[in-house]
Amino acid sequence: MNVGFIGLGRMGSGMAARILEGGHDLAVYDVMPASTASAAAAGARVASSVADLCLGREVVITMLAEDAAVQAVAFGGGGLRDSLPAGAIHLAMGTYGIATIRALVAAHAAAKQTLVAAPVLGRPDLAASGQLGIVSGGPDEAVARCEPLFKIIGRLTFRAGTEPEAASAIKLANNLVLGCAIQAMGEAFSLVRKYDVMPQVLYDVLTEGLFSAPAYKVYGKIIVDGSYDRAGSTIALNLKDANLIIAAGDIARVPLPSGNTFRDRLLGAIAHGDAGKDVAALALEQARASGLES
Amino acid sequence: MNVGFIGLGRMGSGMAARILEGGHDLAVYDVMPASTASAAAAGARVASSVADLCLGREVVITMLAEDAAVQAVAFGGGGLRDSLPAGAIHLAMGTYGIATIRALVAAHAAAKQTLVAAPVLGRPDLAASGQLGIVSGGPDEAVARCEPLFKIIGRLTFRAGTEPEAASAIKLANNLVLGCAIQAMGEAFSLVRKYDVMPQVLYDVLTEGLFSAPAYKVYGKIIVDGSYDRAGSTIALNLKDANLIIAAGDIARVPLPSGNTFRDRLLGAIAHGDAGKDVAALALEQARASGLES
Amino acid sequence: MNVGFIGLGRMGSGMAARILEGGHDLAVYDVMPASTASAAAAGARVASSVADLCLGREVVITMLAEDAAVQAVAFGGGGLRDSLPAGAIHLAMGTYGIATIRALVAAHAAAKQTLVAAPVLGRPDLAASGQLGIVSGGPDEAVARCEPLFKIIGRLTFRAGTEPEAASAIKLANNLVLGCAIQAMGEAFSLVRKYDVMPQVLYDVLTEGLFSAPAYKVYGKIIVDGSYDRAGSTIALNLKDANLIIAAGDIARVPLPSGNTFRDRLLGAIAHGDAGKDVAALALEQARASGLES
Amino acid sequence: MNVGFIGLGRMGSGMAARILEGGHDLAVYDVMPASTASAAAAGARVASSVADLCLGREVVITMLAEDAAVQAVAFGGGGLRDSLPAGAIHLAMGTYGIATIRALVAAHAAAKQTLVAAPVLGRPDLAASGQLGIVSGGPDEAVARCEPLFKIIGRLTFRAGTEPEAASAIKLANNLVLGCAIQAMGEAFSLVRKYDVMPQVLYDVLTEGLFSAPAYKVYGKIIVDGSYDRAGSTIALNLKDANLIIAAGDIARVPLPSGNTFRDRLLGAIAHGDAGKDVAALALEQARASGLES
Repeated sequence: MNVGFIGLGRMGSGMAARILEGGHDLAVYDVMPASTASAAAAGARVASSVADLCLGREVVITMLAEDAAVQAVAFGGGGLRDSLPAGAIHLAMGTYGIATIRALVAAHAAAKQTLVAAPVLGRPDLAASGQLGIVSGGPDEAVARCEPLFKIIGRLTFRAGTEPEAASAIKLANNLVLGCAIQAMGEAFSLVRKYDVMPQVLYDVLTEGLFSAPAYKVYGKIIVDGSYDRAGSTIALNLKDANLIIAAGDIARVPLPSGNTFRDRLLGAIAHGDAGKDVAALALEQARASGLES
Repeated sequence: MNVGFIGLGRMGSGMAARILEGGHDLAVYDVMPASTASAAAAGARVASSVADLCLGREVVITMLAEDAAVQAVAFGGGGLRDSLPAGAIHLAMGTYGIATIRALVAAHAAAKQTLVAAPVLGRPDLAASGQLGIVSGGPDEAVARCEPLFKIIGRLTFRAGTEPEAASAIKLANNLVLGCAIQAMGEAFSLVRKYDVMPQVLYDVLTEGLFSAPAYKVYGKIIVDGSYDRAGSTIALNLKDANLIIAAGDIARVPLPSGNTFRDRLLGAIAHGDAGKDVAALALEQARASGLES
Repeated sequence: MNVGFIGLGRMGSGMAARILEGGHDLAVYDVMPASTASAAAAGARVASSVADLCLGREVVITMLAEDAAVQAVAFGGGGLRDSLPAGAIHLAMGTYGIATIRALVAAHAAAKQTLVAAPVLGRPDLAASGQLGIVSGGPDEAVARCEPLFKIIGRLTFRAGTEPEAASAIKLANNLVLGCAIQAMGEAFSLVRKYDVMPQVLYDVLTEGLFSAPAYKVYGKIIVDGSYDRAGSTIALNLKDANLIIAAGDIARVPLPSGNTFRDRLLGAIAHGDAGKDVAALALEQARASGLES
Repeated sequence: MNVGFIGLGRMGSGMAARILEGGHDLAVYDVMPASTASAAAAGARVASSVADLCLGREVVITMLAEDAAVQAVAFGGGGLRDSLPAGAIHLAMGTYGIATIRALVAAHAAAKQTLVAAPVLGRPDLAASGQLGIVSGGPDEAVARCEPLFKIIGRLTFRAGTEPEAASAIKLANNLVLGCAIQAMGEAFSLVRKYDVMPQVLYDVLTEGLFSAPAYKVYGKIIVDGSYDRAGSTIALNLKDANLIIAAGDIARVPLPSGNTFRDRLLGAIAHGDAGKDVAALALEQARASGLES
């Protein structure tokens, strides 16, 4: 396939490398040209602009961290809406909010293009090894055309529905469940610390029992070790997601009280200077609220 | 060992059976005499009262559902405090609150007895097969004396600390993490339903990914199936635990905002008639709050 | 009337003085005998025990700060239940929880006595000047017998209903509304401070507008001045009330999310060492959570 | 003065009438031309467009319900930014969010115009009688030029600071305090109803005591009467404000837990079909959550 790729950050560069290895023709673009170097070395064509990237592409993937970034790329002059060929697919693989997805759907439909939303689950190491989870939302025919790409990028694909926003809702729901799990661990660790329990013991109880899953093992270990400075996903990035989650609840009229607590602790963490720490620092903020940290 | 056992409910009867199979001398007592029948058939002596049960016992286990019940058994006339031999151990294996544990510690110390708290993790089937998790809190020497019993009751023992309340804190923290996980799932399922997602898809995304653990598999499946009427642990029983959790936070001065949300939704569920449903019905109450259930 | 009075603290001493001025025969009792000095000087008989106090009294008033205290006075050996004449009234004027009120009702009924709950609204200065608000709950006939006392203690009496717990519920609801108002002010002051607004300006906007009432004027001024150390009602005392409020919600199955936030911030304030500060220090705790206080 | 006025809704029409009565030269514009009829009858010039309105105006007031509306009026082609004379003032009197205010400040500064934010406090009847409260934010010199208008529109002017966003923050904080007060009343009324208290009694206790202020008298009465259908400020309009409040907390990194509860109950109310009811219907939603409404 003729594929375009915009956004060669930590996730995107691994995904692009997989696509090249899969034998596809790939053009890449990033606002930071240095980001395209490794893809170029692996055989990708480096486009000079979004418009240039779109020439003759069947599918253009966007993997951008911010809703504002994908909006700029899609709606700006010479952007995807203006430049994608009729019949082409904008495959949006970042975690974007419902309002953005709806705007993209409408804009591409007006230009006889199609939006497929396929946010991914997993971190950069899984992206590099083609082991991501993928949640797809969009018309059956368009999603079917993307399947060859899903197969080389991901380990598992989940079909959310024929509306792109369904995929976005699932990704946001997944992140909501994760944020709440970390916040709940934070509350639990603060509680037991006040009763002179070694945090490692609670960690063992949780992960040997009902919570023997990555969410608890990965983030629980960071909490036990207090190793918040090696950030995988930062507090700041999680606030972006939390705001998308709360906005999705707003649009759908779903009160999300646990989600609010997750978001409130993120705000408190940032107010206390922890924006760049790992999201597990929710437990640090909870400890602070409990008088455990000066 | 000479062991006594009080509270032969669904959990206790399995645990007592294991102790008998382990070759120990066991006396049993329950306020509902019928509950002792199977233990008697398996060779246990049925005591006529708590005082009768205590005669010559090194360890008496209590496995009762309510703090009020263990208080009555311990502090009432002819109760454990009055009847246990000096040097004997009250091994409290139910989920009791911090205040109750502290009262038990003080009462037994005054009578030259020792309290060991060892709440268990797991459901009746694990109790019957000796696969429970056990969290032990109490003086090293006393806990060591209980080890032979832990080995036949449980699969894993976690050492919380030398204070019995440490074990209680861990058990309550574990239940807090569970309650919050179920509530978070409830929010997530309500959210995606509003975007026309089949609940099974979110279930798959969660349990194939970061949440591949019993807490999500067991309760997530109940939510997907809507099978709230076959209750494992009921909403009402969880409210009892939630109140103990909140009280533990009160004593230790730990705000538990996610815990409050868990508790609030339990109250709402009961107000709407769901006290006897499975705790997964938190998701039903969340759906109701989202306008999804009439 | 022959009246007894137990609990001559800051509120009770003012109320007792009013009753004496009203020409009633008054016997007083307090666990701290020094507290009875001023009442004795004004003509009260000082009883040597609760039982002594009860001799020949038609009405005995309790004005105690803790549920445990009124329970000890009522249920202990030689307490009100044992000592009040048949037909006499226990007039409970403290802020007691629903469970305590129910226990008092049952105990007194069994002893052919009557409980009237009549918690008061107002601070010591209003108690001394007979300007309290009174909320009465109890059987019509018994409440009617207390009316002469209400008239000299209070400015206004509100009739809650024929069940004593109705009066308790109203008092707790009043305190809930107050706690939430202070917490909301705390959030509002933290918010505007981050936008470089002088707190006095927000105070003026609130109290010149929709919130021209004592709750906002009194507590708002403490917040603006930061004068948390001159405590009227302390954070610690409010936690006692907050726990009674949350327990009342538990009994009635009413989720109280704002009440939980009020209670959580009280816990946080205590964890940060502010137990003895004025309840307005909720705003200090909120500022701390917002990164505004080191 | 030569004044322009955009947005002649229920609030704006009363304000515009006051300005005309004050002898100023007024041009008006509204997207719904019919809204300008009464102003025209009172002597205002009806402009055919925003650009037409701006001709020769020293001050143009916007009084619009939505941030999107003021953005469209300001930033659209031929909008305020393009059309206001250099040196003129955009006097923004609606309740707009922080992000919108910041964007307006920047845009007008670039065009050598000045933004003054002066949101108003009060309802249409106060607007018509010139009794509004006004909170002003902006450079001293520009605010001074607006003073003659403030004097005829309002009863009281509060000076928030030299940044327009300070005024916005105060207005949002005021609405936060109000929303939380109504939500707290909702919780209190649900609580006492479960103890068989007549709601009127709680209303009397609150409004005769600590809460003798319009916020409690006006909204408390609607709750007692259940007269939610005659909406002053609707649930839907309050959600708009609540979202601006939460966004202001996001920008400033201030967790607002009571604000979240206010917002969640608004969402629940809308999910249950109450979007058009008075904001006091928060109490109805709280009652529903408590199992009191079918």
